[in-house]
Amino acid sequence: MAYLDHAATTPMLPEAISAMTAKLAVTGNASSLHAAGRRARRTVEEARETLAESLGARPSEVVLTSGGTEADNLAVKGLYWARRAGKDGGPPRARVLASPVEHHAVLDAVDWLGEHEGATVEYLPVDAHGRVHPEALREAIARNPDDVALATVMWANNEIGTLQPVRELADVCAEFDVPLHADAVQAFGQVPVDFAASGLAAMTVSGHKIGGPYGIGALLLGRAYSPVPVLHGGGQERHVRSGTLDVPAVAAFAVAGQLAAERREWFAREIGALREELVAAVRAAVPDALLGGDPDPAGRLPANAHFTFPGCEGDSLLLLLDAQGIECSTGSACTAGVAQPSHVLLATGTDPDLARGTLRFSLGHTSTRADVEAVAEAIGPAVERARTAGLS
Amino acid sequence: MAYLDHAATTPMLPEAISAMTAKLAVTGNASSLHAAGRRARRTVEEARETLAESLGARPSEVVLTSGGTEADNLAVKGLYWARRAGKDGGPPRARVLASPVEHHAVLDAVDWLGEHEGATVEYLPVDAHGRVHPEALREAIARNPDDVALATVMWANNEIGTLQPVRELADVCAEFDVPLHADAVQAFGQVPVDFAASGLAAMTVSGHKIGGPYGIGALLLGRAYSPVPVLHGGGQERHVRSGTLDVPAVAAFAVAGQLAAERREWFAREIGALREELVAAVRAAVPDALLGGDPDPAGRLPANAHFTFPGCEGDSLLLLLDAQGIECSTGSACTAGVAQPSHVLLATGTDPDLARGTLRFSLGHTSTRADVEAVAEAIGPAVERARTAGLS
Repeated sequence: MAYLDHAATTPMLPEAISAMTAKLAVTGNASSLHAAGRRARRTVEEARETLAESLGARPSEVVLTSGGTEADNLAVKGLYWARRAGKDGGPPRARVLASPVEHHAVLDAVDWLGEHEGATVEYLPVDAHGRVHPEALREAIARNPDDVALATVMWANNEIGTLQPVRELADVCAEFDVPLHADAVQAFGQVPVDFAASGLAAMTVSGHKIGGPYGIGALLLGRAYSPVPVLHGGGQERHVRSGTLDVPAVAAFAVAGQLAAERREWFAREIGALREELVAAVRAAVPDALLGGDPDPAGRLPANAHFTFPGCEGDSLLLLLDAQGIECSTGSACTAGVAQPSHVLLATGTDPDLARGTLRFSLGHTSTRADVEAVAEAIGPAVERARTAGLS
Repeated sequence: MAYLDHAATTPMLPEAISAMTAKLAVTGNASSLHAAGRRARRTVEEARETLAESLGARPSEVVLTSGGTEADNLAVKGLYWARRAGKDGGPPRARVLASPVEHHAVLDAVDWLGEHEGATVEYLPVDAHGRVHPEALREAIARNPDDVALATVMWANNEIGTLQPVRELADVCAEFDVPLHADAVQAFGQVPVDFAASGLAAMTVSGHKIGGPYGIGALLLGRAYSPVPVLHGGGQERHVRSGTLDVPAVAAFAVAGQLAAERREWFAREIGALREELVAAVRAAVPDALLGGDPDPAGRLPANAHFTFPGCEGDSLLLLLDAQGIECSTGSACTAGVAQPSHVLLATGTDPDLARGTLRFSLGHTSTRADVEAVAEAIGPAVERARTAGLS
């Protein structure tokens, strides 16, 4: 079995499993005032400190959520609503700037604001690697700096692995006092992610993409920002997020976060080297395969390898490889089974027909040379078979 | 240690812990098409069937969420937005009817709709036990049946334990084609909860209140209803809820749900009997203690005992009992530490001064006679001391 879909979800780290199981049998709502509640609260606050340290943030900047999707929704909708209502003392602002290669949790939230909440949505141009250039952002903001509610540009693309120039984009936003959000779900653990140094107003991270559990994530949120809540209720997280804190998952997330930060250099070097081998093997077997995203290692995730195979259906390829024990994706798992070319590829100018023949191999902490060898052996025949099927 | 705060959170059942830990080390995003993904999907769908069966629903009516708060928000905001926009083919409807004793996850969502999204919020009258009478609901709807977006009335109150006449309220709503939502977080496992028989359009349940994990819940949702999502993204749950499915938590929730349903009669009988002993003990020790909620066992949760102690601060009492190893709450854990009288008590007509002296004992599956005896011994001196402190 070669599991090469770590970008969809990666196995939990043994240390995170231990942290989680140690807490499952401990009772106490972190909002309760009695000893059991205070113990739970202590677990949460220690985890919050660990996460903050792992991400270059202050503990008070960590807003725990149920995962990346919720954190993205909170950032996008919450900042929009707050600035649309002039809650920061400024004028009502209704323009939302976004890259067109965002994850659906951002994209669909942004589109909904446009269709439903009076936002003027503007997608920023991207280059052939899916990158937003700071000048394009500046041009868009400068057209009317006073009406921009927020900008959102993902740190690393989940399909093709391209990194955005987050710091430069944040600098542009800072010139105009526009909050910038970045979805760093794929970036955390693979490239240096430091919230303070990034200049971001808000940043999304998720547990199950870094060896932590499902169902937990965080929005890193500068103290100056008070997004309108997406989930109302008890007000547990800085009154911008409600819901009983998931103590065991929070504890396990912190352990995974700390290890993701500590092992990042090792990960980039070792898993990045395996990725290079995988890319070389696929190209040797299928010479006309097109590599997606930025080819420069400095401009991309070290563990992502995205290919387009002309004349193939990605889904057919995926299932042929699956039959050989190789598990990968055509793009994002979140939209798997949807027979549409990826919005990411279309945004980069890929021909829609070509964009149907994509595969994403994403490596992770359990990846081995044997995984790469399995792909090297299987990919040529699989592509040949998929092409024959495509002709019939 | 006497843990009497099961309504805040109850210990995970060993069976649920086993189900959860068995899945923590299994990898696979339930949206992925490969074998690992299909395996994860199978786990989720089997759990969904179990939950549906335990709640008298169809599997397709179970929308998995990150917990009760999210399910409440989805029901209230989602149904409002859908019917406000006339997505069901009807006229735009902007009136929201709610009981004033709702959990904050409903209450604050409703209030937000009023302040921010153009809703006309109308709180229904309740009696001294916090109960909404069907005639009051009928009167409110009949004033203008065409403009009611939804009604929401919690199945069982989390503070005082009073049950609502859900079926009768749903019958009234059905006369006017108004969807009724009920938060059944406290009801599930304590009283018979059957979604089909209830006549509800939507119903909230939560994992960690029934011996399952934190971070998981569900909105039971009739097939005819398509609330606007609160969390946009991959569209994983019937396109009304997005976010990667938390496979281990879903599996554990199903185990806990099945056991909650199977053991409900035992729970009501055995834990209900302990509750009666606790009530008698407190009354014997503090004769002027006032019992909250409906005194009729048929009209209340069997495991909730709510008291008001005249002349006391609830927080002082809580901490005095905590020092004796007795863990309880002044009301809802979600607003613990907030020095305001409970909105539930105020709605039932309790004097605000009196309403500061409340304690909620909530029993659960691990409760024993020793817990009751601990309260019997400690409550008298604690109340006496709190009263003395109050006078100084």
